[in-house]
Amino acid sequence: MQISQLGEFGLIQRIKNALPHPPAEVIVGIGDDVAVLKVSDSEYLLATCDVQVENVHFSRSVISPYQLGRRIAAINVSDIAAMAGAPLWALVSLTLPRELETDFVDALYEGMHEQLNLAGAVIVGGNLSRIEKDIVIDLCLLGKVTPDNLLLRSGACKGDLILVTGWLGDSRAGLELIRRPELIISENSRKQVVQRHLTPQPRLREGQELGSSALVHSLVDVSDGLISDIGHICRASRVGAEIWLGNVPISSAARETAHAAGQDVSAWALAGGEDYELLFTASPDASAEILSLLEERTGTPCSVIGRVVDEAEGTHLLLENGTKMALPEGSVGWDHFTSARP
Amino acid sequence: MQISQLGEFGLIQRIKNALPHPPAEVIVGIGDDVAVLKVSDSEYLLATCDVQVENVHFSRSVISPYQLGRRIAAINVSDIAAMAGAPLWALVSLTLPRELETDFVDALYEGMHEQLNLAGAVIVGGNLSRIEKDIVIDLCLLGKVTPDNLLLRSGACKGDLILVTGWLGDSRAGLELIRRPELIISENSRKQVVQRHLTPQPRLREGQELGSSALVHSLVDVSDGLISDIGHICRASRVGAEIWLGNVPISSAARETAHAAGQDVSAWALAGGEDYELLFTASPDASAEILSLLEERTGTPCSVIGRVVDEAEGTHLLLENGTKMALPEGSVGWDHFTSARP
Repeated sequence: MQISQLGEFGLIQRIKNALPHPPAEVIVGIGDDVAVLKVSDSEYLLATCDVQVENVHFSRSVISPYQLGRRIAAINVSDIAAMAGAPLWALVSLTLPRELETDFVDALYEGMHEQLNLAGAVIVGGNLSRIEKDIVIDLCLLGKVTPDNLLLRSGACKGDLILVTGWLGDSRAGLELIRRPELIISENSRKQVVQRHLTPQPRLREGQELGSSALVHSLVDVSDGLISDIGHICRASRVGAEIWLGNVPISSAARETAHAAGQDVSAWALAGGEDYELLFTASPDASAEILSLLEERTGTPCSVIGRVVDEAEGTHLLLENGTKMALPEGSVGWDHFTSARP
Repeated sequence: MQISQLGEFGLIQRIKNALPHPPAEVIVGIGDDVAVLKVSDSEYLLATCDVQVENVHFSRSVISPYQLGRRIAAINVSDIAAMAGAPLWALVSLTLPRELETDFVDALYEGMHEQLNLAGAVIVGGNLSRIEKDIVIDLCLLGKVTPDNLLLRSGACKGDLILVTGWLGDSRAGLELIRRPELIISENSRKQVVQRHLTPQPRLREGQELGSSALVHSLVDVSDGLISDIGHICRASRVGAEIWLGNVPISSAARETAHAAGQDVSAWALAGGEDYELLFTASPDASAEILSLLEERTGTPCSVIGRVVDEAEGTHLLLENGTKMALPEGSVGWDHFTSARP
């Protein structure tokens, strides 16, 4: 069997099943974006890594090395944010073709450093190697969180509301404009969504506020796409979910882009991914408090976009006209081995 | 300027120079194989990563996925051993072509798991991604060490003796036999050196014994090659070194291979690299005690192969006939961007 038949998540599950059950100090292991490791009773170590592969995740003709550095750092910081943690230290593994210019490496590190510095983290090591063709950048980010503040995918309860920070679909809109620069939209909108795609801003302070509020039951970041990421919460928490399409926050810039492209902006918001917003659940009572707390302390708007239901009800979308659409598990969102960029 | 003009170590220095000085909790940062990070007064976190790139570090026609898994785990464990630390947790980033068989991934993880398990470490996460062509495996290994046991490159003192565990040159001999299987040598010798190349055994217990002995001044593992790795100690410690060629430990299997290949076994031992032995310095008084301690507790033989001299004297080789040969800094050993496999 080829790995493309199994898919990314199938392969992860296969790897997990083949390895022995980890010891108790591994609070969260294989299958999550971040490993949670008990270093003491008062502190957990967080460890995550994310790879950017040339001609899979990026093209040198589209993203500058500085932007690429910011982007890979942001993706990792977002993973730590989704645990309500604080980033500390980064290791960077680079595989580079021999003929690459040193300027590229300089700008890449400048970008990584700037984004990590915003998050309070520093680059402490890594590895350099040669490759024949495509550049591969693997950033491993370590962070910390107190056991009380840690938020996982697995805490959602039936009856919770589902909330998301910011806007969904901007990154997918930015990708559309990069591919089809001839599309006519306002310069401000173009700049906004292209920037959201190339150099996303992780919701680090928001994650930390959610962790310390003691009001949130489960948390992930929106990297694969809303439908896929709410699926991660549902599977880990053994619940179902109902997403209220009319409440999903979509920016006017994304709407403008989708209109110009003749495409469905809702599909971008639901399945586009790479927005790096935070998606979380909390009891209805707590939700109002969280909305005002986040707005007040971080300035970030937040939307209630659905509710957690019984596992038996599955995951579905509620349209504004009252129609319910079932969302088959794992059918929407990014999978490295089975998806192709549309 | 292209990175091949700067070389691997030049590029690392350039990256280090461009970044701000790290905060005090970063005990060892960029430029070493392992980052040392202060998590508390009584414990340091160790973090290292090493990459294996297809058609640069390995060929699927030569190494099995199981052996490859053992090999990449061993290389990382050796880095932790060279800090006198204990491995704990591993993250594995894989970039794989879509058409790869799942059997390959199964066997790769089996190999990584077995080698890590021997070292007391578990796989806790990672990242899967697609790549068009060459497989890239990045293993990030975390470990711990107490501040008292930590050994660095930077502690060598003038007058120290230089010691090394085991034998040097076996890995290079194994590589020769993989390339030239037609060479006629005994089956036992062939098996020994090929195994040392494909699945090296890290000197983990030896490193830990050296750390807790409180007798050792500086320590590295022999990954780039003896001459290159003693250079790391010399630069970090601001000393020079004299290597006694007649004392460098070379196995009869490596000698047999070099003879059959019509090559110089001393060159393999001095510059071949990838033996993953431990290279360290200690005062002459302590050296005898260390030799018996290591032999008694681990069964591993150890050789005195030179002495630490004043920085102004540089690094040189002392031949058995008394001839001194200067070793120009950085001229011998593996460099990812400037070296080609001979």
